[in-house]
Amino acid sequence: MTRIAILGATGYTAVELIKLLLRHPEADLVAATSRQEGNPPIAMVHPSLHRRIDLNLEDLTPQEVASRAECVFSCLPHGASASVIPHLLDAGCRVIDFSADYRLSDPQVFAQWYGEKHHDPDRLGKVVYGLPELFREQILGARLVANPGCYPTSAILALAPLLKSGLIEPEGIIVDSKSGVSGAGRTLKLTTHYPECNESISAYNVGRHRHTPEIDQILGSVAGTKVEVVFTPHLVPMDRGILTTAYSRPARQVTEEEVLQALRDFYAEEPFVRVIDHLPGTKDTMGTNFCDVTARLVRGRVITISCLDNLVKGASGAAVQNFNLIYGYPETTAL
Amino acid sequence: MTRIAILGATGYTAVELIKLLLRHPEADLVAATSRQEGNPPIAMVHPSLHRRIDLNLEDLTPQEVASRAECVFSCLPHGASASVIPHLLDAGCRVIDFSADYRLSDPQVFAQWYGEKHHDPDRLGKVVYGLPELFREQILGARLVANPGCYPTSAILALAPLLKSGLIEPEGIIVDSKSGVSGAGRTLKLTTHYPECNESISAYNVGRHRHTPEIDQILGSVAGTKVEVVFTPHLVPMDRGILTTAYSRPARQVTEEEVLQALRDFYAEEPFVRVIDHLPGTKDTMGTNFCDVTARLVRGRVITISCLDNLVKGASGAAVQNFNLIYGYPETTAL
Amino acid sequence: MTRIAILGATGYTAVELIKLLLRHPEADLVAATSRQEGNPPIAMVHPSLHRRIDLNLEDLTPQEVASRAECVFSCLPHGASASVIPHLLDAGCRVIDFSADYRLSDPQVFAQWYGEKHHDPDRLGKVVYGLPELFREQILGARLVANPGCYPTSAILALAPLLKSGLIEPEGIIVDSKSGVSGAGRTLKLTTHYPECNESISAYNVGRHRHTPEIDQILGSVAGTKVEVVFTPHLVPMDRGILTTAYSRPARQVTEEEVLQALRDFYAEEPFVRVIDHLPGTKDTMGTNFCDVTARLVRGRVITISCLDNLVKGASGAAVQNFNLIYGYPETTAL
Amino acid sequence: MTRIAILGATGYTAVELIKLLLRHPEADLVAATSRQEGNPPIAMVHPSLHRRIDLNLEDLTPQEVASRAECVFSCLPHGASASVIPHLLDAGCRVIDFSADYRLSDPQVFAQWYGEKHHDPDRLGKVVYGLPELFREQILGARLVANPGCYPTSAILALAPLLKSGLIEPEGIIVDSKSGVSGAGRTLKLTTHYPECNESISAYNVGRHRHTPEIDQILGSVAGTKVEVVFTPHLVPMDRGILTTAYSRPARQVTEEEVLQALRDFYAEEPFVRVIDHLPGTKDTMGTNFCDVTARLVRGRVITISCLDNLVKGASGAAVQNFNLIYGYPETTAL
Repeated sequence: MTRIAILGATGYTAVELIKLLLRHPEADLVAATSRQEGNPPIAMVHPSLHRRIDLNLEDLTPQEVASRAECVFSCLPHGASASVIPHLLDAGCRVIDFSADYRLSDPQVFAQWYGEKHHDPDRLGKVVYGLPELFREQILGARLVANPGCYPTSAILALAPLLKSGLIEPEGIIVDSKSGVSGAGRTLKLTTHYPECNESISAYNVGRHRHTPEIDQILGSVAGTKVEVVFTPHLVPMDRGILTTAYSRPARQVTEEEVLQALRDFYAEEPFVRVIDHLPGTKDTMGTNFCDVTARLVRGRVITISCLDNLVKGASGAAVQNFNLIYGYPETTAL
Repeated sequence: MTRIAILGATGYTAVELIKLLLRHPEADLVAATSRQEGNPPIAMVHPSLHRRIDLNLEDLTPQEVASRAECVFSCLPHGASASVIPHLLDAGCRVIDFSADYRLSDPQVFAQWYGEKHHDPDRLGKVVYGLPELFREQILGARLVANPGCYPTSAILALAPLLKSGLIEPEGIIVDSKSGVSGAGRTLKLTTHYPECNESISAYNVGRHRHTPEIDQILGSVAGTKVEVVFTPHLVPMDRGILTTAYSRPARQVTEEEVLQALRDFYAEEPFVRVIDHLPGTKDTMGTNFCDVTARLVRGRVITISCLDNLVKGASGAAVQNFNLIYGYPETTAL
Repeated sequence: MTRIAILGATGYTAVELIKLLLRHPEADLVAATSRQEGNPPIAMVHPSLHRRIDLNLEDLTPQEVASRAECVFSCLPHGASASVIPHLLDAGCRVIDFSADYRLSDPQVFAQWYGEKHHDPDRLGKVVYGLPELFREQILGARLVANPGCYPTSAILALAPLLKSGLIEPEGIIVDSKSGVSGAGRTLKLTTHYPECNESISAYNVGRHRHTPEIDQILGSVAGTKVEVVFTPHLVPMDRGILTTAYSRPARQVTEEEVLQALRDFYAEEPFVRVIDHLPGTKDTMGTNFCDVTARLVRGRVITISCLDNLVKGASGAAVQNFNLIYGYPETTAL
Repeated sequence: MTRIAILGATGYTAVELIKLLLRHPEADLVAATSRQEGNPPIAMVHPSLHRRIDLNLEDLTPQEVASRAECVFSCLPHGASASVIPHLLDAGCRVIDFSADYRLSDPQVFAQWYGEKHHDPDRLGKVVYGLPELFREQILGARLVANPGCYPTSAILALAPLLKSGLIEPEGIIVDSKSGVSGAGRTLKLTTHYPECNESISAYNVGRHRHTPEIDQILGSVAGTKVEVVFTPHLVPMDRGILTTAYSRPARQVTEEEVLQALRDFYAEEPFVRVIDHLPGTKDTMGTNFCDVTARLVRGRVITISCLDNLVKGASGAAVQNFNLIYGYPETTAL
């Protein structure tokens, strides 16, 4: 049994995390923080949790959190996370961070894309990127895990095996991603006001989405060379789900079957990546920790298509998978 | 005043067409055909037309149609259209064909993508492709117009100016398109059954969608060289709208502003193409005949983004625009 | 040609109104107000209006408005409307008010439901309720029209003919209404944040929705006796549309056909009410000024079902209909 | 461990059931039937089940089913269920029937509403209605359970406590229900074709929905007198969820708090009914076996509002709850 705290528990990833942890036989949720006034019960903020959890939101210091919990899931925004996490680590907690604060290894890249100096630059480059399919060994027993972004997970799982096996060129990769609206969070914005985004699809943050350097870095490390993807996110009128259509050039003469086989081989032992022959829809993965991946060869271009639930494999499910690895619980527990 | 017949009036493009024609001061809708039994009023099949039109669906021969109407809009499926249209032309009608039957100039390409021999091969190559922004002169007074496909319109309008001006390479163009469900028609299919496609996005017909050769052909003619795009359509949970994100390589050193200016110059006089600086959503064009186009330059790649309403500029609005050009009515009438 | 100003032009009813007026041959939109800084073009706030209108939002005084426009559509919220409208009337403008400020005839009822004193109480009771199907004569040439609420329009059009003809009891009427999200306006709220309201239906403001006294008052005046409806609004995950299912008791032995005939008789000459035999969906009326009405007799209870587009017949379409009546234009112009 | 078979495994209730059973430590799914040709793996028909279950659809006789399974969940349509179930019972199986075949106690009422003679009339009236909140004792160890309809569950749970305690009149109850589209099943119909039902709400089967007599019967048995509700179902553009707004008259002077307290008292020990003070949305219960219930007193009328997930508490979750009761597993297992 592990005593768990969640920081920043009012958003969508937090409520998804809580639901997963409620199913986890070894998880004991002991604290949930928020700056909401009056310490309301969590169920006041997330009515779906009514009668399922008896815990109030509290505005706690890192020390108070550490005095109660062994493991902390931080759902705080970037910047805020890196301000708190060093204190938690010093106090002996293990931390799974949902923010981007510890994903990038270079503080300058962070500053460039996030527009602010990093609060804890010395730790960058020493934190494992919490994608078990690539970094399981380093996650086992880790004290701090940087939980991947939702878009990067979909892009990396589809492309990494092909880069690693040298089947595709690392140059000129295009990542065209489509996400449901929960990915934009619970903060009110005109772009996610129902009558604005319903019945509409649009691209956004073209050329400047902050998940870009994260995809670059991980694919680059896998490929062993610099990778700079062209990444275009789109907002789709649905609650959850990401579909990524990635375009790359084969590095040599390949068949579609070879590409598919490379994916199958890579993920043969993976519990949460399904290499499929048919074309997936995000709904096939809704509410699950699966990422479905397939590939096609069209006019000399490799098209990889992947999908997942942005709140599960793209966030809270991945976090629970990391939690299981850190603490030595069976990797699929509660997932 | 022009007497008009609609063939195959039970689908979504037909009802959209009827609504546009009801606003058209020079359109006199005199016949609407269907194989529905019992000659029901159109409003029985399209309840939104109740009290707006007093016309029954009839199962008419081409001769009967020609005896009543001067101008025929054929909303029949491919194959069926080419079986009927020669008779209508012989009888003196002008025809605007919504199907793919007269879009391609090469019967072999047709046979390859549509899996059947063309019914009227000799006419191929002599029919104008009804995209006024490229072929307005040939449409004026035409006897037969091949109304463009919805995806091709979105892709061609975004790419043609850049190919024509030599700003982008004709090789390696990627067209990643996202469409609402009405584009799949009114025929019942599991993939468009509400609980299947709602809250999900998926790619379909990857590498084999029939709009591919149409995009190839028109862009090729504009570029003056062979073009083979990689075209990936996606199904989006919304009624209507297409967003196309196209990726190409600049043919020379260009700035984003140059690309945008090329688009602005090309469409300076066009009533229905809006070159915009912001990133559009399909909703901005919903129910209108506009196509919104913009461009970005990202990591050395040109990204063009276009959107339109697949039932209007992608089908029935374009048809009315063509109708106006054929008959010399102001081009924007009823649009 | 009538010079028109719109007050509060940033919301959904305003943009819908602008689109209708753009189709109106006698409407000359000369001003649009808002407190937005910097006098941006309207199309900056409503991208769908790009290239369709060349007008900037301005923060104008009533005097400035009156110096430019003859007719003012006020899309201001309640309270704000009544603060401005007296000045506009004094300056000679005619006004169509979208707010609730002049709908109720009793300032005390207003204060009770809106929680504030009325700014212009002396005028209450002298302003025509802009529902042409009931009050056409008074609207003709009126200087001030109180444009009806969206829910009241759907409820009143379904029930008024039956109350007037004495077919149903005025007591115990239940009005169960379902509305799309645009009815909640463009102001950001958690309840209309996409991931909150999508894929969910809920009742809201049960027993205290402010459209209740408006329904009471008009049905009461029609019935010639006090009416107090039980009104329950629901939020439906769709952009637009209201469906109202109303339950009442027959005042005497009636057949379903008699009820339908009473509706047909009442609306025989009405251009925008369609009495139908089938069960309507809100989509049948989407984008139109129609209200579809039908009735059923079930286990001794009269069920009337009505639907309309809350932004058209429920707001801006009704306003244009009123505009046409005030100025003597054909009632259906632009509709 | 209980060996389980599912009859009619291609629909939405079946796939939901399978997902729940996969989480159940005592459930061993040994057979799934369908008339699909070629015995495809279930995951071919339900792609979300890929890699989660290794079972093929088979066209089995009742005897073959009984030779493998102890417990059978029948997801067959009405009529078909009653043709098979007697054989399964004779062969010693216990059966949980999703169809309406064993819900009504009177074969004549069945014939009247379902338009056909019952196949197994002698058993009617002896089968427990599988709503544990009312009939838990009879479900324990039952050989055959009639799993309730989705609408009836929402209506009965909201009204039964008030009828039982004599707080409301059994006469004149109005049940206005709103359901997501999955409730209409997986069979293709125009009404559930995406572009038809998306962005629209409509009433359907007014006065003749087959869940009416089921609500009548159970509420009547609870009230100890004849009940005939006016039941109006509506189709809402969302995947899943039912919200029921029921209107009744208090049988005596009551306060809102008394009504709420009656609900709280009745469900004090129930694991899956949450009596709440706020107004619920169906999303609060999505994917769970909860039914949320609240009440308001408005102008002398009691309004009860309840919501649930039609595929879980309205179908497959209820079935698993019944399964747990029958076999003595903890009632909340897998839920």
